Amino acid sequence: MKFVRYGAEGAEKPGLVDATGAIRDLSGHISDLSGGSIDPDALAKLGAVDPASLPLVSAEERLGACVAGTGKFICIGLNYSDHAAETGATVPPEPIIFMKATSAISGPNDDLLIPRGSEKTDWEVELGIVIGRKAKYVSEDEALDYVAGYCTIHDVSERAFQTERSGQWTKGKSCDTFGPTGPWLVTKDEVPDPQNLRLWLKVNGETMQDGTTKTMVYGAAYLVSYLSQFMSLQPGDIISTGTPPGVGMGMKPPRYLKPGDVIELGIDGLGSQRQTARADA
Amino acid sequence: MKFVRYGAEGAEKPGLVDATGAIRDLSGHISDLSGGSIDPDALAKLGAVDPASLPLVSAEERLGACVAGTGKFICIGLNYSDHAAETGATVPPEPIIFMKATSAISGPNDDLLIPRGSEKTDWEVELGIVIGRKAKYVSEDEALDYVAGYCTIHDVSERAFQTERSGQWTKGKSCDTFGPTGPWLVTKDEVPDPQNLRLWLKVNGETMQDGTTKTMVYGAAYLVSYLSQFMSLQPGDIISTGTPPGVGMGMKPPRYLKPGDVIELGIDGLGSQRQTARADA
Repeated sequence: MKFVRYGAEGAEKPGLVDATGAIRDLSGHISDLSGGSIDPDALAKLGAVDPASLPLVSAEERLGACVAGTGKFICIGLNYSDHAAETGATVPPEPIIFMKATSAISGPNDDLLIPRGSEKTDWEVELGIVIGRKAKYVSEDEALDYVAGYCTIHDVSERAFQTERSGQWTKGKSCDTFGPTGPWLVTKDEVPDPQNLRLWLKVNGETMQDGTTKTMVYGAAYLVSYLSQFMSLQPGDIISTGTPPGVGMGMKPPRYLKPGDVIELGIDGLGSQRQTARADA
Repeated sequence: MKFVRYGAEGAEKPGLVDATGAIRDLSGHISDLSGGSIDPDALAKLGAVDPASLPLVSAEERLGACVAGTGKFICIGLNYSDHAAETGATVPPEPIIFMKATSAISGPNDDLLIPRGSEKTDWEVELGIVIGRKAKYVSEDEALDYVAGYCTIHDVSERAFQTERSGQWTKGKSCDTFGPTGPWLVTKDEVPDPQNLRLWLKVNGETMQDGTTKTMVYGAAYLVSYLSQFMSLQPGDIISTGTPPGVGMGMKPPRYLKPGDVIELGIDGLGSQRQTARADA
């Protein structure tokens, strides 16, 4: 199943996507798609609901991030061997973990705000893993039991803030709207192999990234298990698993986003996003 | 005023500390001490409540973290010139920002869990700033208008996870119970100068840290303003402002926590914490 959250920012309602691609209102069944309601078993039960019995939602509705109440927005750095190469880095011996601020999360088609003072706002399409059940010290074999599903994530990054303004990447990863999430939370049954998904990103119609999760260094199950050795993963937590080659920083000369640019990105089966960049007020 | 949250983990109620040091139940006035209720103006209004009119709470009650619903647990690295020196680092030209997982937040006197595989669990007493009002692009002059108050924080750190397991500090800062917070959220009027507070920490009765916020490189108002240039600060967010000298990593030879150790720490006027270390199950 594909779940969405739609409506004005801060007042989103839960919905599901029916066989025709239309959104149906799920708010008669659950209050929101957040920690308490996205246990894999709970999501499976919602599969028994007949979409035709649910109110149809206007296709004009804004989409919010596909999960609410995210406590941790965990990112993996340099997790594609070919992306590591383009940034001049080597593949790390263990996954690199950093955090994005949860306040960076935005809807998949919301405007992308270029922060004040930014000259190096860059793009990164990534596969997102949404945790559905508390996971701590779990093995790789059982790791996916704790996953609610997958989504498309745009890990927007300000490279000067990230690398030129005193250590730790968080500073360049956490600006408001730097985490478009969705459109859909897609349950695991629709993603039989998370390591065989095509990811792509275009700026103003020009393809910048066109990769596959086949070249991820550390796969989804490994990452959930690995992270759970360092912290408990909670329902609603998001893991953004790194980006394939083609970011602006890796180009010669580098290319960055400017107001008016249109960024489109997507992952096969997980839906696509479209943002217009503008200067933050 | 001094606010607390008391009761079983996950079911804490709000309270205030009366003139005798006893806790009074505030749940008839607010549902919790979280984002929606800690705007500085809202906290000031609670000052009009007569503590004697509130139910007395047993002194036996567990204390939870003094603020709930924290969206970001932001930490500042190497922010005391004398601590930077002991770790062999130089003072950074701009504040170093990293994140602790919000799932690391625990009550001030809860057990401190030494994670599986840890051999280098270390202590750090820190002054915490609790945001009370959304702050974005705010000046240093107005920064403290956005602060609800201050608290004692224990920024527990696993040094091998932090520095020997592939880049970015988050990995060694985010384990469950690595963020004891409280006992009190102390409003600004009781902390006229956050840059003149003594901080101390003892292990098994032996003083390890005994510093003052006078030697902080970047002060509270500067940090709130600085951070707000990179991300919006939200009510309930916590900024942990760095630690003075005396951490275990800086000793010759280094000293780390082991099961059974008792850690006590505090900040003048902000209250003290007491944790017993034990191995995580």
